Amino acid sequence: MSDLLITNVRPEDGPAADILISGGRIASIGPGLAAPPGCPVHDGKGAIAIAPLVEPHVHLDKILWGLPWHPINVPAGLRAMIDNEVEIRKSLPWSVEDRAGRLMRQCVAMGSTHIRSHVDISTFYGLDNLHGVLAAWEKMQDAVGLELVAFPQTGMLIDPGCAALMEAALDEGASVVGGIDPGTIDGDPKGHLDTIFGIADRKGAKIDIHLHEPGELGLYEMGLICDRTEALGLQGRVVVSHAFCLGDGPPDKVAAMIDRLAALQVGIISAVPGEIAFPPMFDLAARGVPCALASDSIRDTWNPHGNGDMLDRCWLFAFRSWCRTDAELLACLDLGTARGAALLGLPGYGLAPGCEGSLVLVEGENRAQVLVDRPARALVVKAGRIVAEAGRYAGPGAP
Amino acid sequence: MSDLLITNVRPEDGPAADILISGGRIASIGPGLAAPPGCPVHDGKGAIAIAPLVEPHVHLDKILWGLPWHPINVPAGLRAMIDNEVEIRKSLPWSVEDRAGRLMRQCVAMGSTHIRSHVDISTFYGLDNLHGVLAAWEKMQDAVGLELVAFPQTGMLIDPGCAALMEAALDEGASVVGGIDPGTIDGDPKGHLDTIFGIADRKGAKIDIHLHEPGELGLYEMGLICDRTEALGLQGRVVVSHAFCLGDGPPDKVAAMIDRLAALQVGIISAVPGEIAFPPMFDLAARGVPCALASDSIRDTWNPHGNGDMLDRCWLFAFRSWCRTDAELLACLDLGTARGAALLGLPGYGLAPGCEGSLVLVEGENRAQVLVDRPARALVVKAGRIVAEAGRYAGPGAP
Repeated sequence: MSDLLITNVRPEDGPAADILISGGRIASIGPGLAAPPGCPVHDGKGAIAIAPLVEPHVHLDKILWGLPWHPINVPAGLRAMIDNEVEIRKSLPWSVEDRAGRLMRQCVAMGSTHIRSHVDISTFYGLDNLHGVLAAWEKMQDAVGLELVAFPQTGMLIDPGCAALMEAALDEGASVVGGIDPGTIDGDPKGHLDTIFGIADRKGAKIDIHLHEPGELGLYEMGLICDRTEALGLQGRVVVSHAFCLGDGPPDKVAAMIDRLAALQVGIISAVPGEIAFPPMFDLAARGVPCALASDSIRDTWNPHGNGDMLDRCWLFAFRSWCRTDAELLACLDLGTARGAALLGLPGYGLAPGCEGSLVLVEGENRAQVLVDRPARALVVKAGRIVAEAGRYAGPGAP
Repeated sequence: MSDLLITNVRPEDGPAADILISGGRIASIGPGLAAPPGCPVHDGKGAIAIAPLVEPHVHLDKILWGLPWHPINVPAGLRAMIDNEVEIRKSLPWSVEDRAGRLMRQCVAMGSTHIRSHVDISTFYGLDNLHGVLAAWEKMQDAVGLELVAFPQTGMLIDPGCAALMEAALDEGASVVGGIDPGTIDGDPKGHLDTIFGIADRKGAKIDIHLHEPGELGLYEMGLICDRTEALGLQGRVVVSHAFCLGDGPPDKVAAMIDRLAALQVGIISAVPGEIAFPPMFDLAARGVPCALASDSIRDTWNPHGNGDMLDRCWLFAFRSWCRTDAELLACLDLGTARGAALLGLPGYGLAPGCEGSLVLVEGENRAQVLVDRPARALVVKAGRIVAEAGRYAGPGAP
């Protein structure tokens, strides 16, 4: 909750102005603001100021970020990749806390000041992953907001005891109940979803379900998710991540599903896969469905790609969607900033007086060019505190 | 044709070695090489050495690289984009020479030491684009190889006189005859291809045809291209760029076409579109078709994306192809290096004694990691001459 005067910036690439943050909130934006006594001043040097990037889907406990190169060597198929990960994680040289801390610092350096992360819960992990991630976050709470999803990566009904651990996780720092491919992992769509929604209902938690299952199967399960959202009055508190079925399902059924998602305010998060179809994000946005982009898997046992940079992810979405006009490019940026904040329900998000004093400075001509070129973030501010500068983490615990 | 001793590098991420270049060619690679009298020495500091990147398809005359941000504002459709470009290029503040020079320096800085560029030829451009690009290249021939394609972007048969200008271009520095979508631009597949192949036959030139036309139409025209390649004995001298039809055509017909392309050594270049299907490059490579990746359109009136970095393009291909293992990642890099050189028939390409003394140094753990992270090129060497260092052009005319 700090004070900071940032001079000579261009909010949303508009005319030059100063931004005064008082007590962690934006007090005013305008030309020629004076620094209150004792308030630090940062010269923005004409950089563009934007509200922070938002990372709504990542796996902080899975990450190998910062470790020596890990050659991926795993048969295709979800189950094989899950089992492979469990085996490798038995002998990593760094703890969950070490690895999660490294990635959080990277996310902050790239301009994300809020993260929703899934953490694997199972009877063999127990709550270790949750505790490890929370231990890392404890040291840098002033730099980044964090929301944790109790995620049954390795299966829930097929791992008796897992659901109880997920419920316990909600008492120890998680606030969202996760789920995964109810048909193919647990082999029981009804059982999987009833359990998850039951936990959420009892604990007043949100829900965020990984749904990779394609086409008609995915749409069927999305329908089950909507049924339960409606029955339990969980409108606005349920998210489906990945939702490939909205990309590859029959167009008429997808259109009908989008209407239902909008009515129930069920959110959709996409990590922009490179090789398969993904949800029609612009259609979702236009029709009122909460929606956002995310990094998902980054340099872990599943995938060698990724860097925790949501600006990069927004550009990948632009590239995958053949966006060319400035309006299209800005709509891509929106999916990694304001729409992410709205989907997660972040209070006080925005670049306006009264909002949280969090922002990103980046040098460039305008936001469209910044999206295309993805320059290093010149400054990242969280609630009035400088947490990254010149592309490097500068928050609590920085070297 | 310079001498250079580069010490302490890891060729192809193998054991540490020195590389001695004499008279522009690699004389030896091994540990503890001594510098001949007067030979400059560069400390590679443990960087990985690879043979240079190859840029086989770019449009040096179209580029707006370095100019203020150009907001794209053009209706969809190939004809609309072509007409839009012609209009905008009437009033650009920089000449073709200025713009082409800037992009060539950028390509070299990113590690490409050979470029094949198309240049627009038409009755209203005349040979101005060819002359402008050649004027830029004249000043930096020691930094980069250049091969030019006389390209009828705006139509050939529908622009009487264009074909004669294309033929004239071959006398003034171009060495490849271009073509574009015979069915939809000129509206005459037979006429378009007969004209192009006629010019190539008379002038002993190579051929490189833009083929965006999809599915059955594209495959039909590719068949016509193969017919003429065979009839005129142009095996190994014809390339089809883009070739979307190999990505979206009926699988059995695509398979048959790949066999024919292999038999005739007709090459395929893909720029890795973000939103549509592209040729199955690994299948092409496995079945003996010359094939490579390329940047194509970069920051021009068509497209705001791109940066002239072939390592970036190889990564995009990896991302679009869900490549995860080291072997897969190295195969992607191959499509931007050795396969590009083979497709263009570059003599002496490679990182071995006797090859041209051209190479790229990049800091990293191994080539797979370098492909994923795409760090700045530490050093770029062309025939023994340092032409870029620390990501910046350092060849003839460098600031």
